[in-house]
Amino acid sequence: MSEIPEKIENLAKKANAASLKIANFNTELKDNALEKIAATLENNKDEILRQNSIDVKNAENNGLPKVLLKRLILNENKINDMIENVKAVKSLKEIVGKTISAIELDKNLELYQVTCPIGVIGMVFESRPDALVQIASLCIKSGNAVIMKGGSEASNSNKYLHSLIVQAVESASSLFKDSIALIETREEVDVILKLNKYIQLLIPRGSNNFVEYVQNNTKIPVLGHSDGICHVYVDKDSERDKAIDICIDSKCQYPAVCNAMETLLVHREIAKDFLSIAAEKYRAAGVELRGCPETKVVVPDIKPAVEEDWRTEYNDLILSIKVVSSLEEAIDHINNYGSHHTDSIVTENKDSAKHFLKSVDSSSVMHNCSTRFSDGYRYGKGAEIGISTNKIHARGPVGLEGLVIYKYVLVGNGQTVAQYSGKDGKKFTHKELNDKQFNG
Amino acid sequence: MSEIPEKIENLAKKANAASLKIANFNTELKDNALEKIAATLENNKDEILRQNSIDVKNAENNGLPKVLLKRLILNENKINDMIENVKAVKSLKEIVGKTISAIELDKNLELYQVTCPIGVIGMVFESRPDALVQIASLCIKSGNAVIMKGGSEASNSNKYLHSLIVQAVESASSLFKDSIALIETREEVDVILKLNKYIQLLIPRGSNNFVEYVQNNTKIPVLGHSDGICHVYVDKDSERDKAIDICIDSKCQYPAVCNAMETLLVHREIAKDFLSIAAEKYRAAGVELRGCPETKVVVPDIKPAVEEDWRTEYNDLILSIKVVSSLEEAIDHINNYGSHHTDSIVTENKDSAKHFLKSVDSSSVMHNCSTRFSDGYRYGKGAEIGISTNKIHARGPVGLEGLVIYKYVLVGNGQTVAQYSGKDGKKFTHKELNDKQFNG
Repeated sequence: MSEIPEKIENLAKKANAASLKIANFNTELKDNALEKIAATLENNKDEILRQNSIDVKNAENNGLPKVLLKRLILNENKINDMIENVKAVKSLKEIVGKTISAIELDKNLELYQVTCPIGVIGMVFESRPDALVQIASLCIKSGNAVIMKGGSEASNSNKYLHSLIVQAVESASSLFKDSIALIETREEVDVILKLNKYIQLLIPRGSNNFVEYVQNNTKIPVLGHSDGICHVYVDKDSERDKAIDICIDSKCQYPAVCNAMETLLVHREIAKDFLSIAAEKYRAAGVELRGCPETKVVVPDIKPAVEEDWRTEYNDLILSIKVVSSLEEAIDHINNYGSHHTDSIVTENKDSAKHFLKSVDSSSVMHNCSTRFSDGYRYGKGAEIGISTNKIHARGPVGLEGLVIYKYVLVGNGQTVAQYSGKDGKKFTHKELNDKQFNG
Repeated sequence: MSEIPEKIENLAKKANAASLKIANFNTELKDNALEKIAATLENNKDEILRQNSIDVKNAENNGLPKVLLKRLILNENKINDMIENVKAVKSLKEIVGKTISAIELDKNLELYQVTCPIGVIGMVFESRPDALVQIASLCIKSGNAVIMKGGSEASNSNKYLHSLIVQAVESASSLFKDSIALIETREEVDVILKLNKYIQLLIPRGSNNFVEYVQNNTKIPVLGHSDGICHVYVDKDSERDKAIDICIDSKCQYPAVCNAMETLLVHREIAKDFLSIAAEKYRAAGVELRGCPETKVVVPDIKPAVEEDWRTEYNDLILSIKVVSSLEEAIDHINNYGSHHTDSIVTENKDSAKHFLKSVDSSSVMHNCSTRFSDGYRYGKGAEIGISTNKIHARGPVGLEGLVIYKYVLVGNGQTVAQYSGKDGKKFTHKELNDKQFNG
């Protein structure tokens, strides 16, 4: 085994061993660790800014695009936000050790389904130093170990923030030392992908290509989404002004993110009226429009939308528009071309809305509001670990609840299966024990 | 594309298209389909037995081991059980369209988390014709499409049962025709593994090697378990007779299954007393014992257990025994050598029990009862689709609940994110709407 794989395997092995212990930490201990992180950030603002300025200078020299530079740069306000975020995670409800269900199999033989941490989370994220602090906080709160890899542009900030966090939490428990790990190179990520023995879940964030690369190169379950091809469908029974507001917001409020609309679907009956006004508003907002042939009849001076457009996440002020002949055609288009992320219908017809909400196979489906709402903060989760378009485990904006699983706990007093077998065997009662908690 | 891949891809594509529609079927329609399956099985018993007898004859000629032959053979009683099972699945509570959580983001902006089917399930199972009927029933009840591959020894039985089921459910809805598919060869399974575009979850049952093969050759999430290395730990504070009963049951009641004990751990303080009696009982039951050096001091005339034994699932009347010096050593042994399936502690010390139940990282952890209880039927699930040692989505015995996920449904009246942005933006209320159901 060469040097890097051995180093990373050891790190993952230690994280795994630590995860078994920290899974049992009580709320007080975990909250104490988070408190200490908040304090250490408060006490080391100057050095955080200094380390970050090295990253920023390097990034400027390397010509990092402005939008990315903006995410990389820290200032005192951003550090204060980081500290507030750590406190916000601390204030979230305990999620470990909760009884999901309780059932009596027989007298004095009780089965509890109890939440527990997943184990070791492998987390790869973009060049935002605040993300490192939030991810570490969420993993501490949920009792998981974590191996983090942040964007290389933030390497000095990340190394320093990581060292601060580890120092802080070690004073709460020495076990935390191994449970919060940082790796730094893409080569090390490739080693991580092979360590399904020690790592239970990967959460890659970043470019579509990168998420797909992870999905294609690991046996570890992956929570994530590659594309965000979101739609708004404006129904024939929609209120025009409401529809305009929602369509402008969904595209323009922040076009670079995954929950922004990429394709607008409009019912034929209202297409002429609606599209002529919408096109004017989009033009004023600097949006490039691409339309199907029917759209181009109403708005002639735009590019034609080709097949490829329906499958494209522009992440920019570009919008494809298609006129559809029915609600059903809109639903089929979304299920066929979309990425199962977030799709919204604008209509005053409740039956049409219900049919859309039930039939569109996306992690978030919406009625009369902007696709931009699908986000952990707006959904009230307190903090978001990622967005998932998976069809198992956790879907949509994922908070703490995506970082836990459950175990079954069966408590008896000597029962054997033989006693319940054969014609004269004892019978199971299978009686629900409503609201009974496992007292573990 | 050669013939088989094209045929199977078309079948999966059709199943996927159908899954989007049947996801919305109401309880009555699904229950009606299950009713029709029960009736058709009732009306075609003779032909089912005739088709099965062809499989049985072939299997006998091919020298299929008796234990497998027993699972393959149908008789009138087994067909009656099949019919009862279909009716039992029908009687399970509806699991689709349930509101898991409801929260007001703001006035007239309500977010619901609602259960929905996963989509298309790929299911590979052993040569038991009754399994085909149960799997099809569970997928119908949960609104999923399914592509099934049964053991080849049962091919005539499976083909006939599948044709009966499809005919029966088609009269409930023609969409079911595409949503319940049967494939027949291992080559076709290999094609299925590549179709992550159309299939959302694989549930392989069968040999450890086969489950691992599936895990290693697909990007589709896999729900399953390869090994069942289960332990009983007899603590120093245990009651001897209780411990003996549990240890005998865990090993001997049905040794060929995954929840049978493979390794017995005994605390040093009671090892001499306990092991001398246990060894006698095991010998009487025909169990071959393999012991650590300390075990061999008490029970000299047994094989030594080597490192390999601690990682072996015998699935047979063989048991490895290890003397441990503490509860902590037992927990470490289980977490290190076990397969995270089912592990039990026998003790009268409540603190030791609690520590064990919290610290052992297995899908089922037990106190004072036999490992053999971890099973969907005994856990009161009505039916079991499989057992999972995954750390995400579903863990332990998995019933209907493992076949659903959720979507977020956000219902507004024209809200945009821009309204909630900036200093003067509206504030979210994030008020829990307890017990409010999405009326979809």
